[in-house]
Amino acid sequence: MKISREKWSQNFSQWFDWVLSQAEFYDYGRYPVKGTGVWMPYGFKLRQNVIDLLRSLLDQTGHEELLFPLLIPEGLLKKESEHIRGFEREVFWVTQGGEEKLEERFALRPTSEVSITFMESLWIKGYTQLPRKFYQIVSVFRYETKATRPLIRVRELTTFKEAHTLHETYDDAARQVNEAVEIYSKFFDALGIPYLISKRPEWDKFAGAEYTIALDTIMPDGRALQIGTAHHLGQHFTKAMDYKVQRADGSLDYPHQTSYGVSDRVIATVISINGDDHGPILPPLVAPIEVVIIPIPAKNPEDDQRVLSYAKEVLSMLRSSGVRATLDDSKDKTPGEKYYVWELKGVPIRIEIGMREVTSGTVFLKRRDTLESKVVGREGVVEEIRELERRMSEDLKARAWKEFREKVRAFDSLDDVKKFLETRGGIAEVRWCGSESCGLKIEEETNSRVLGAPLEPTGGGNCVVCGKPASNSLRIAKTY
Amino acid sequence: MKISREKWSQNFSQWFDWVLSQAEFYDYGRYPVKGTGVWMPYGFKLRQNVIDLLRSLLDQTGHEELLFPLLIPEGLLKKESEHIRGFEREVFWVTQGGEEKLEERFALRPTSEVSITFMESLWIKGYTQLPRKFYQIVSVFRYETKATRPLIRVRELTTFKEAHTLHETYDDAARQVNEAVEIYSKFFDALGIPYLISKRPEWDKFAGAEYTIALDTIMPDGRALQIGTAHHLGQHFTKAMDYKVQRADGSLDYPHQTSYGVSDRVIATVISINGDDHGPILPPLVAPIEVVIIPIPAKNPEDDQRVLSYAKEVLSMLRSSGVRATLDDSKDKTPGEKYYVWELKGVPIRIEIGMREVTSGTVFLKRRDTLESKVVGREGVVEEIRELERRMSEDLKARAWKEFREKVRAFDSLDDVKKFLETRGGIAEVRWCGSESCGLKIEEETNSRVLGAPLEPTGGGNCVVCGKPASNSLRIAKTY
Repeated sequence: MKISREKWSQNFSQWFDWVLSQAEFYDYGRYPVKGTGVWMPYGFKLRQNVIDLLRSLLDQTGHEELLFPLLIPEGLLKKESEHIRGFEREVFWVTQGGEEKLEERFALRPTSEVSITFMESLWIKGYTQLPRKFYQIVSVFRYETKATRPLIRVRELTTFKEAHTLHETYDDAARQVNEAVEIYSKFFDALGIPYLISKRPEWDKFAGAEYTIALDTIMPDGRALQIGTAHHLGQHFTKAMDYKVQRADGSLDYPHQTSYGVSDRVIATVISINGDDHGPILPPLVAPIEVVIIPIPAKNPEDDQRVLSYAKEVLSMLRSSGVRATLDDSKDKTPGEKYYVWELKGVPIRIEIGMREVTSGTVFLKRRDTLESKVVGREGVVEEIRELERRMSEDLKARAWKEFREKVRAFDSLDDVKKFLETRGGIAEVRWCGSESCGLKIEEETNSRVLGAPLEPTGGGNCVVCGKPASNSLRIAKTY
Repeated sequence: MKISREKWSQNFSQWFDWVLSQAEFYDYGRYPVKGTGVWMPYGFKLRQNVIDLLRSLLDQTGHEELLFPLLIPEGLLKKESEHIRGFEREVFWVTQGGEEKLEERFALRPTSEVSITFMESLWIKGYTQLPRKFYQIVSVFRYETKATRPLIRVRELTTFKEAHTLHETYDDAARQVNEAVEIYSKFFDALGIPYLISKRPEWDKFAGAEYTIALDTIMPDGRALQIGTAHHLGQHFTKAMDYKVQRADGSLDYPHQTSYGVSDRVIATVISINGDDHGPILPPLVAPIEVVIIPIPAKNPEDDQRVLSYAKEVLSMLRSSGVRATLDDSKDKTPGEKYYVWELKGVPIRIEIGMREVTSGTVFLKRRDTLESKVVGREGVVEEIRELERRMSEDLKARAWKEFREKVRAFDSLDDVKKFLETRGGIAEVRWCGSESCGLKIEEETNSRVLGAPLEPTGGGNCVVCGKPASNSLRIAKTY
């Protein structure tokens, strides 16, 4: 018997709020600043494990972590005019220090291109120092006027990993954008998150970019969620700051840049993507607790002590092998009540230990996703758990990709697209001539958002709007 | 021959600025917001290692990490009147969101007592949930009007570890303050930082506290630096918010709280405390690089390749044993120039590898602090390094404590105190009757700051001001 996934997919928004608060990931909507939330200890650990994974991928590829100030002076932020136009309606401004009005306003960083370019101009003078790849993991602030949603659309994004790189040539920067997409693909693959990679349309690229590549997933309610972006910034910012470096041929020129980011949304996806009506199923790789041990009360109460000490032995065996395990020996709950709590928290593996296990020297393992169980000898339990986790991670990923693929469909008419997006939801693909006017028409007629086009254009067919020969597909979705 | 420590102690302020910028720890004073700086990659790693050490001490003692929003609404911040009076002159205010004036101003957190108490009142309803110990590591903001100094007095403290705990009784909270002091003592001991523990005088306790215990060290220039504080908050904040919990006897009462913090100043101390004229000497426990390998060019250039591949073998042997090692094989610098760079960066151990080492299968180790060297067989190099690090850490700590103790002296007259603090500097102790008026007089006459009294009062002698019988000593210093 499997756990139903009806509420999870049909009432996803309620499901998500329920899980975040009841499983104590993130307390949202009660702290008295709109669009902000508190990472509670359990959620904080999940966040930390996800961050550690991302850090290791970035460090392996020569990225260097640093930390910039939060505040950006208005004059600096306004150096690049396209950029500030894209952000100025959502900037929080600090205007007052103590009782004094500040001479210049400070923005709470909405993103850090200008700050980092400013410091790069002091640090990096010539091509021998290039490329340079920096990143930081910080809070960024957006005065969102749209409806806010926990971890998905907030005013303080508390987990914004922004990378900023500097290169001698346009092509070097373009290759770096590809590396960024590769790193993010590995990151999402490790977490079992399915995604599509699209080149955002001209009218929806990052403010101040040559082009933007984005990775989108689909949430259980069928809406697309942007979970990573990479921007080729060209010389926009370096020109705006009149920052030149010496090139290999001795000439001075503006260096080329990229930036790329992921946010809290990745953690929202990790929590959501493998859910069911009992709660989330966290990937073992990042689950704060991989295994919970539940002692089963004995018929003969004198045996309870034996059960408990056996459970503690198993616990310490697991912990000493590096398995993040916990024992729920609370007295005020039945095993059933405990199952409920730990399923809601998304712990991937449950161990039940009663007198049967004590006398036979075994351990009873149960998978959170399929509810399949297995009795294994106590000695081999660590290997069994590692193997079970490996299979579970694969199965979860395969299921998520299967569901994702079912939600990506090609259409010949905008009416069908509209119907598809309004009923099932997902990502629709149509053939497209490549023109902005037809792209905007598609958005208008389907009342949806264009995600962009595949990176490798495909010929054939005709544009769904103008009927001219198509040069690529265009992807459309209801988005967050 | 030892490296001189004259500039380090005589011109400490310049020494510190030089090290921070030239060794690429922290770029200060160039980012265009006064009192802020950028953690550069090398400094960021040191910061990260120090944070990891602190986290492990807190996690071991049942503290739970979480993360609160940065912004605090003015109304919430003003709930506790003593507290806001202590902070209001140094609060940065956000007043504007996009083009709109905000209905209520938001403070950039100067500290988080009120936010955390507010959420605790939603989470924790009764004594069975107590005690609860939370912490977060965040940026806090102070609109400092005094002269700012990198990592020591800044407007954005980027590494503020603040713990907040909740208890049923006053005594439980008092015991928690003691635990906090114990944890900080272990933390500073592990880093080899000497300190004195003092109870801050009434007139200098934390705004909203029953009492404050502080840990102070002495910087190379003789000035005292507060590096940790722990506050018994009593029921100040819970009463201000009318937050009660159910006690064991069934009654409802305001819970008791503590808070305690350390900041960037710890990292400033780690960099400063063991310096000499070539730079800092970082404790091996937290040094971003424990060992740097420098290849020595061979007489016969054809041998250079053998030297380099031998050096690479040693490097990978060290790394695979978990030693944070690096190889400086840059072509454009002489070994002497490389020594200069890595000494400036404070790397505790240097390995030199030339043909002599290649042919004899040995490794030449050199300590950063004493310049003592040792030739060891290649096979045993990891054990030798671990042993050398153990001795170095002990020696550095012993030296720092010896220098510290020489700077703490008892005096019978305020004139002598004044002379001592104005010439050598350090911490002076005088006998004291315990009255605030005599304490303030001591500050005034010595033009210095009272740090407070030892936790265990000692009788005997007479107050240096009024001549009445003394109840304790009082500590005085020039402070940062």
